[in-house]
Amino acid sequence: MPYLACTKCGKEFPLETLETRCSSCGEPLEVRYELTSPELHRSDFLLEKYRDFLPFPKPNKALSLGEGFTPLLKLHRIGESLKVDLYVKNETVNPTWSFKDRGTLCGVQYAVDRGYSKIGTVSTGNMGASIAAYGARAGLRTYVLVSSTIEEEKVLPISVYGANVVKVEGDYGMLYYESLRIGAERGICFVNSDHPMRVEGSKTIGFEICEQFSFKTPDWVIVPVSSGGNFRGVVKGFKEFREAGLIERLPKFVVAQASGCCPIVRAFEEGKEEVKHFGTPNTIAHAISNPFPPSGNEVIRILRELGGVAVTVEDEEILRAQLTLAREGIFAQPAGAVPIAALHKLVSRGLVEGGESVVCLITGAGLKYLKSLEGAPLSITSVALEDLGSAL
Amino acid sequence: MPYLACTKCGKEFPLETLETRCSSCGEPLEVRYELTSPELHRSDFLLEKYRDFLPFPKPNKALSLGEGFTPLLKLHRIGESLKVDLYVKNETVNPTWSFKDRGTLCGVQYAVDRGYSKIGTVSTGNMGASIAAYGARAGLRTYVLVSSTIEEEKVLPISVYGANVVKVEGDYGMLYYESLRIGAERGICFVNSDHPMRVEGSKTIGFEICEQFSFKTPDWVIVPVSSGGNFRGVVKGFKEFREAGLIERLPKFVVAQASGCCPIVRAFEEGKEEVKHFGTPNTIAHAISNPFPPSGNEVIRILRELGGVAVTVEDEEILRAQLTLAREGIFAQPAGAVPIAALHKLVSRGLVEGGESVVCLITGAGLKYLKSLEGAPLSITSVALEDLGSAL
Repeated sequence: MPYLACTKCGKEFPLETLETRCSSCGEPLEVRYELTSPELHRSDFLLEKYRDFLPFPKPNKALSLGEGFTPLLKLHRIGESLKVDLYVKNETVNPTWSFKDRGTLCGVQYAVDRGYSKIGTVSTGNMGASIAAYGARAGLRTYVLVSSTIEEEKVLPISVYGANVVKVEGDYGMLYYESLRIGAERGICFVNSDHPMRVEGSKTIGFEICEQFSFKTPDWVIVPVSSGGNFRGVVKGFKEFREAGLIERLPKFVVAQASGCCPIVRAFEEGKEEVKHFGTPNTIAHAISNPFPPSGNEVIRILRELGGVAVTVEDEEILRAQLTLAREGIFAQPAGAVPIAALHKLVSRGLVEGGESVVCLITGAGLKYLKSLEGAPLSITSVALEDLGSAL
Repeated sequence: MPYLACTKCGKEFPLETLETRCSSCGEPLEVRYELTSPELHRSDFLLEKYRDFLPFPKPNKALSLGEGFTPLLKLHRIGESLKVDLYVKNETVNPTWSFKDRGTLCGVQYAVDRGYSKIGTVSTGNMGASIAAYGARAGLRTYVLVSSTIEEEKVLPISVYGANVVKVEGDYGMLYYESLRIGAERGICFVNSDHPMRVEGSKTIGFEICEQFSFKTPDWVIVPVSSGGNFRGVVKGFKEFREAGLIERLPKFVVAQASGCCPIVRAFEEGKEEVKHFGTPNTIAHAISNPFPPSGNEVIRILRELGGVAVTVEDEEILRAQLTLAREGIFAQPAGAVPIAALHKLVSRGLVEGGESVVCLITGAGLKYLKSLEGAPLSITSVALEDLGSAL
């Protein structure tokens, strides 16, 4: 039977608990299993396909929007220029166009299994749209708490699904904890960034990469990191497949953050065990600009345990990576291009070596934030119809 | 061996011709096959999976961005309210977030097979982004001709891929024909809206629906129609699967247009054989606002041959359908919501009957045109952090 355990002290909790953090040490909980000869099932529904690895005895396909099963694409040109065997896992083709949909599906299945009729999250973007969509799909009353300074461009794709969008004035970092407290009081299941069920959803990214590599392991997996929940999930996926005997070894994992908001990289480099509040973020990669990541300490523990790497990239490197990626046909939001920028850095430092295989996780679609392109060097010309021939 | 033939007079052309329209009667060409016991192959690459039904002897996966294989979702609430068995084919999760990617892949494979180093299209939106992405992926020089009045919001997602975006002043309807002429002169393969290869790509939508229905046939398939190329493709898919013995019967097909640009529905209702120029379009469904659809006459021939239905919907019905769809978790661009609006109309007219199965084709993502939501009734409130508890 699956149960919850603290990622740090190991304290155990029943799966039915509404806690998402350890009552002793405050660190995030995760689902644990005894994986006794788990199998992969044939299904186009994530919760069915991986049901031996998930805590849902009765997955309900009516909750699904067709998430997951995203392409792993080989990028020939960038790969050749960096002399590596480069792949991207394209999460921009999920139902709300980011990786969040995997974890949201798990969160909604969990909430419905426990009889909740209300669900919520705290988000400035991808997660808000995702929970709004899946809440609508499930017929739940849905609350998305956003910062009062959010841009209109980001509110519409959340509110269109019929969610109650609440702009909250005050310290945005506090909202994560306040929402959990109020949610417990008012019967709203808040599936925030590093909720144990979100981690379970994200681990299917790791599973799929293993399968798409025919159960060989790539040398490197680079993940853009904000709260830390997604990174934890991807790593957990590889670990559980290894435990199940499906792969032999783990890849080297890379935590990539923007230098304008890099609390995890900073703490890791300083040899600290705990992440400190970064202060005001200043980066174009909004989707990974959590200044006080709730799973930050656990990400550091994972990096130390597995010998992982942490790296920061500047906004101009992110923008350049966004254009480089688009010139291979994939339009990512800035945060989604961060792993490509990070890879350039790791290659130039000699950490990633020629011929190694690398998977970059492209987390969300470029359409989500067109403003990032203002000022980019794009080719747009004007011509009269009669002069078209000479213009081409 | 596949060959090209005129959809109207049947005149045959070798596949190698650069013509896309009949030199005798001016009507569009299509690919024809002698399907001798074709098989479906196991592959995650469309051109490989359906290779017995496609004119590409050597499909090149390096050209793919992972298009197709989109979810077919059952919509419980709208279905129950209309008393039909309702499904949507969600094309918003393609690599550039519209169905166009299927046809673009075929067009690019065709161009590369024939040694082209330049590719182009005429588009105000979805098709431009798609050809720009796939042109980039293939390393081709790419030209996207757009109207000089195009909004910036629509140019950026095209130009980001590195395409040469050319704003053309003059009659936009003429551009389709001018581009073909100039392209032939200058060695640019223009894969416009109803290019025979685009139709081949769109037919994989029909194939997938058949498979997702376990080779039973839904009663109705509703398609939003602009140039007519996509509709032709979807119908062709069902016809070829019937010819191959994979399904027994065809569904009833519905052509859905916005009343603000409905040249095909108008000609069909008036009993005409030829579509007339509609004049200036006036609809929020920009993606289907071609006032002089190049495959319009062929769409009418198909409707007559198969006993299909043609219907128009008002902008307010489209917007309502867009919100209704979002409240089941799918955020479509206005054109993509047109089939849902059309279904409401067909049910109220008694054409679609209780218990029948209906597939609506959702062609493109809502993120592509957020402006359509201006004025929509969305729930957004503001609250101070200390008052959050009472606000939820």
